[in-house]
Amino acid sequence: MQQKEMQDGKPRSVSVIGASGYSGAELVRLLLRHPAVEIDTLYAFSQTGKRFSDLYPSVTCDREFLRYEGEAVSDIYFLALPHGEALTIVPELVRAGKQVIDLSGDFRLKSPDEHERFYRQVKPADAWMPYAMPELSRNDIASAEAVSNPGCYATSIILGLAPLFLGKDHSVKIKSVNCTAVSGLSGAGRTSKTELSFSEMSENMRAYKVGQHQHTPEIMQALGTSASSPSFDFIFTPMIGPFTRGIYSVLSISYEGEFCKDSADELYRNFYTDAPFVRVRGSMTEVRHVAMTNYCDIHIAHGPENGRLVIVSAIDNLLKGAAGQAIQNMNIMLGLEETLGLL
Amino acid sequence: MQQKEMQDGKPRSVSVIGASGYSGAELVRLLLRHPAVEIDTLYAFSQTGKRFSDLYPSVTCDREFLRYEGEAVSDIYFLALPHGEALTIVPELVRAGKQVIDLSGDFRLKSPDEHERFYRQVKPADAWMPYAMPELSRNDIASAEAVSNPGCYATSIILGLAPLFLGKDHSVKIKSVNCTAVSGLSGAGRTSKTELSFSEMSENMRAYKVGQHQHTPEIMQALGTSASSPSFDFIFTPMIGPFTRGIYSVLSISYEGEFCKDSADELYRNFYTDAPFVRVRGSMTEVRHVAMTNYCDIHIAHGPENGRLVIVSAIDNLLKGAAGQAIQNMNIMLGLEETLGLL
Amino acid sequence: MQQKEMQDGKPRSVSVIGASGYSGAELVRLLLRHPAVEIDTLYAFSQTGKRFSDLYPSVTCDREFLRYEGEAVSDIYFLALPHGEALTIVPELVRAGKQVIDLSGDFRLKSPDEHERFYRQVKPADAWMPYAMPELSRNDIASAEAVSNPGCYATSIILGLAPLFLGKDHSVKIKSVNCTAVSGLSGAGRTSKTELSFSEMSENMRAYKVGQHQHTPEIMQALGTSASSPSFDFIFTPMIGPFTRGIYSVLSISYEGEFCKDSADELYRNFYTDAPFVRVRGSMTEVRHVAMTNYCDIHIAHGPENGRLVIVSAIDNLLKGAAGQAIQNMNIMLGLEETLGLL
Amino acid sequence: MQQKEMQDGKPRSVSVIGASGYSGAELVRLLLRHPAVEIDTLYAFSQTGKRFSDLYPSVTCDREFLRYEGEAVSDIYFLALPHGEALTIVPELVRAGKQVIDLSGDFRLKSPDEHERFYRQVKPADAWMPYAMPELSRNDIASAEAVSNPGCYATSIILGLAPLFLGKDHSVKIKSVNCTAVSGLSGAGRTSKTELSFSEMSENMRAYKVGQHQHTPEIMQALGTSASSPSFDFIFTPMIGPFTRGIYSVLSISYEGEFCKDSADELYRNFYTDAPFVRVRGSMTEVRHVAMTNYCDIHIAHGPENGRLVIVSAIDNLLKGAAGQAIQNMNIMLGLEETLGLL
Repeated sequence: MQQKEMQDGKPRSVSVIGASGYSGAELVRLLLRHPAVEIDTLYAFSQTGKRFSDLYPSVTCDREFLRYEGEAVSDIYFLALPHGEALTIVPELVRAGKQVIDLSGDFRLKSPDEHERFYRQVKPADAWMPYAMPELSRNDIASAEAVSNPGCYATSIILGLAPLFLGKDHSVKIKSVNCTAVSGLSGAGRTSKTELSFSEMSENMRAYKVGQHQHTPEIMQALGTSASSPSFDFIFTPMIGPFTRGIYSVLSISYEGEFCKDSADELYRNFYTDAPFVRVRGSMTEVRHVAMTNYCDIHIAHGPENGRLVIVSAIDNLLKGAAGQAIQNMNIMLGLEETLGLL
Repeated sequence: MQQKEMQDGKPRSVSVIGASGYSGAELVRLLLRHPAVEIDTLYAFSQTGKRFSDLYPSVTCDREFLRYEGEAVSDIYFLALPHGEALTIVPELVRAGKQVIDLSGDFRLKSPDEHERFYRQVKPADAWMPYAMPELSRNDIASAEAVSNPGCYATSIILGLAPLFLGKDHSVKIKSVNCTAVSGLSGAGRTSKTELSFSEMSENMRAYKVGQHQHTPEIMQALGTSASSPSFDFIFTPMIGPFTRGIYSVLSISYEGEFCKDSADELYRNFYTDAPFVRVRGSMTEVRHVAMTNYCDIHIAHGPENGRLVIVSAIDNLLKGAAGQAIQNMNIMLGLEETLGLL
Repeated sequence: MQQKEMQDGKPRSVSVIGASGYSGAELVRLLLRHPAVEIDTLYAFSQTGKRFSDLYPSVTCDREFLRYEGEAVSDIYFLALPHGEALTIVPELVRAGKQVIDLSGDFRLKSPDEHERFYRQVKPADAWMPYAMPELSRNDIASAEAVSNPGCYATSIILGLAPLFLGKDHSVKIKSVNCTAVSGLSGAGRTSKTELSFSEMSENMRAYKVGQHQHTPEIMQALGTSASSPSFDFIFTPMIGPFTRGIYSVLSISYEGEFCKDSADELYRNFYTDAPFVRVRGSMTEVRHVAMTNYCDIHIAHGPENGRLVIVSAIDNLLKGAAGQAIQNMNIMLGLEETLGLL
Repeated sequence: MQQKEMQDGKPRSVSVIGASGYSGAELVRLLLRHPAVEIDTLYAFSQTGKRFSDLYPSVTCDREFLRYEGEAVSDIYFLALPHGEALTIVPELVRAGKQVIDLSGDFRLKSPDEHERFYRQVKPADAWMPYAMPELSRNDIASAEAVSNPGCYATSIILGLAPLFLGKDHSVKIKSVNCTAVSGLSGAGRTSKTELSFSEMSENMRAYKVGQHQHTPEIMQALGTSASSPSFDFIFTPMIGPFTRGIYSVLSISYEGEFCKDSADELYRNFYTDAPFVRVRGSMTEVRHVAMTNYCDIHIAHGPENGRLVIVSAIDNLLKGAAGQAIQNMNIMLGLEETLGLL
């Protein structure tokens, strides 16, 4: 591959903590082809001693997984750990002056109460880092040293709703949002659960955590309200379906007020005019349209009509929903072109 | 197999018109093992001359498909034809004194206007036959000579909602129903469309006809209201997913009033107490729980809580959603045990 | 369902030991609809205390799994246990005068040496029971009190080869058999292995145990030779593919001598003339042709030509490859019609 | 993306004729990210007027498909057309001095007789172009102006066998090769056939053209013999399975003579020592190891032992089996690094 370099002539060094899971592996795949950074070390607790290519032979990377023991030598750290495990590691890395992108839910919620309620885990009151969804807060990310990468469902749903809540020049009031979203099974991680075996999930679908999924407060917070005291009626039904990659969200919205003719579509297109990875589409989107890409496709599937709007939003859960968005955030934090290494 | 017989000692003869599609084929499979009827003739337009087992070798049936030309010699006729094709055939069979179960949408809607709007097809004002969902109108079916078998999505959704609309002893008023349902691809029939090929649909999902699906007026009619002038806010988003059999519906309901403690669950259990094929379940249902069965599984996945209720309803689209329910209706029309040949 | 009865007016009682795995569950599903037997007790070690319908809600059976502790009260016992576990249980049941059908590999091989080599487990020299493949040894099964049910791959492969080795009236000598077979993932059992998760196996295929699979000596023994000293060159490559049910075997055979015109086809049809579950087909077979059936479909896909013959053989691994064949054997042992409860 | 350039400062222009099928679309995807070429025009007969992104929204390319009418303005032409259609177009392009890579079977076989027998189509005696498998004939490709890109099955099988036939320093004589290969359904192209619909192929497998597949003479020719007068016994059974991408080949070989200890593995590793896309692996390979890559993974799964060797070979049928190998050939023809744009 071509010589990697930054403006100062030297690529930045990157390490991934939790590199053996599906999100971690996607990070490695993307970092290997990224022109401005170089992988330093891959850490993985349960797989220590194995090589990356033992688990993911399709990616050309023979590095050995090491056990992370507190060293802080790279310029940038990605953490793709099970929830709870980043809580102690991130502050150490931040103190050591490292740039940190955490893919877990540990630092996403400002409210420790909501965190405790949805993650069933206590966290310190200051365990919060800027919520790094570039389409909503590019500037904050650019100036941050450490950020929280959004959750997969949350990315799909927030991007599908944001123009209605955060967009300008419309006077519509959202009354309720009904959200159902089907995730591919890679969303459950690299796992050995019987109920996620091929024989159980082929030709199957299953809802879970209806009204209780931990991305609920994350979505509400990003839309400017809260799960404890929401400004609109919200219900989220997550499901898993028989595919590996992708999240397909149907957002059914009731509102008061009037959109001008075509203006919901315009509202969405204007809102995302500077967002290279959000595509507001004139026809129905599908999971295969976004699989293996960092795109979020949004289509206004019904309405606005009689106070009702149905938005369909599709992402690749491992890319725009995890590793791809993390690289996008890294690009912004490093002052690089937002799309670098992602097209 | 055991000798088939009716109380008068002779099994009834049954013919299937449109026996080469997936619903028709399921009818054949079920009729072959049914103890009280015997298959007379299988009709199929496009496959005339082929044998049933050429298309469906897993079913032991070497009958040749014939072209239907107006004969009316069997006791009972099932029609599993594309929409529109039953409109002329059914009246002839009825005039000939035959018992008829039509699986198409041709005779389901009382309103020709709604039929025209949703099927984009004009039909006569009297083209209506009793809507044969046994859980709602067992007595009407028992006394009918010809009935309309419900649609697949409609079956899943109506059964998931009926206790709220038609159940007794509760004072809750339904304000809105948001419905998303994922269908397996057999719902699209035995087809040669590129967009339904394995390569396009594996690892894919796609919504379609959002807010415009032809089962909408059927659902409203069954719940005692109409699509033209609905008594509650209703929106239905159908989707297809990468599996063959099943419909998985998420029904998100907002209501006014109060359920007593546990009473939504009790309401459902009471409503279906005499329904052998509806199972109100205490834990989450999945497509695999109902695949290859005539069951409709219903689970109250969230609430009732703060005016919100989420119901999950699952069926096999080809069985409870088509051929299985048709056999169930035949059993009722013949005065047989409702479950005969279906367990 | 109709009243179950035997000729003496009372159905036989049946218990399943190891009823929670996929083969055990298929046994339960088939036994429930079998007209001549009644289920007595379901035993399952790891699932003791759960109900059958907790694991398999599509089957209407609320029985609780019990822990087997040596009781012998039913007329008939099916054992569907991991290899090795039947070695002590079967002899006790036989001593208690019970009829036993063991689905494991424990009693299939006459040679303890071959058993040890392929199962890596020592077994007593007398741990052998008649090999119950009805198409090869119906009479032996009819007179046996306890039998070994064949393995899944073995069933598909032996039935695809038997006419060449055991058929009469031909003078062809088999020189070599190359066998590749793809199994659906239910063949690996109800499992929690990461490498059998949906995300790892969707869109995937994998060979394993090439030349070393434990069904090799079983196949050779059934064909009248042995793995240690084979009368022809044999190699077997098992594979798993991204589907749940089915085994699809390609048997490529080289031979010396001449078949008469069409005689390979005739040889096969004659050999299986009394076998209700083997279908020698004139066109290509597929997994879907036999899924959910007890059929073994065989097609001569190439030749005989220039000393080469390619046979394709397809079964449902859980039915003809396990539970279906076990019921077929039970029918024979009880003097019932061979197909009872299986069509 | 970075500025594309060749050594002379200008990227080469490339057009794809037949850009709307799966292989054509993969070519487009790869060419877009290739640093040394630029796409000029996309031609597609049946899709003329549509945009590339209408069919393949996951790829960022809004070009319109044009109808090819004989123009020859680009530097390089890829043809990904149905068999037969390149026969007239390629000679015109060659006469116009263009570099041509043809992905069809039209120019692969030197023998018009074998072409006619396997493709059921007559072709001119001189309709042959160098067979462009870089691992076998890198130098010939480097000096060619127009080449035939190998077939998908052929690539997997030839690479799995070549060291035995073309490798040096061994004295083993191959007696027979039994080949079974399972292809993902994208191998059948973007199609509307009923038998390739999701509902027919999910949970299914099917063999076809046993002993008659058109890649047979291509394989024989590449191994230095011919289908008409083969130097060893060869039989090939192609199958399709329920996945989209990949070919998984099992090659069972019988031989005379002796490999030295470990020497089959050494033979393979030595033969491919300069082949960046062939990986001789010490453990079992799987389709997922090569999906979305240009790798061919080869594993000696059994033997050499008693005259028997089993080789497993896996590729992505659309990449190493079509578009990826085509780009690899283009790189060689242009004097670029062989892996450029492919890692």
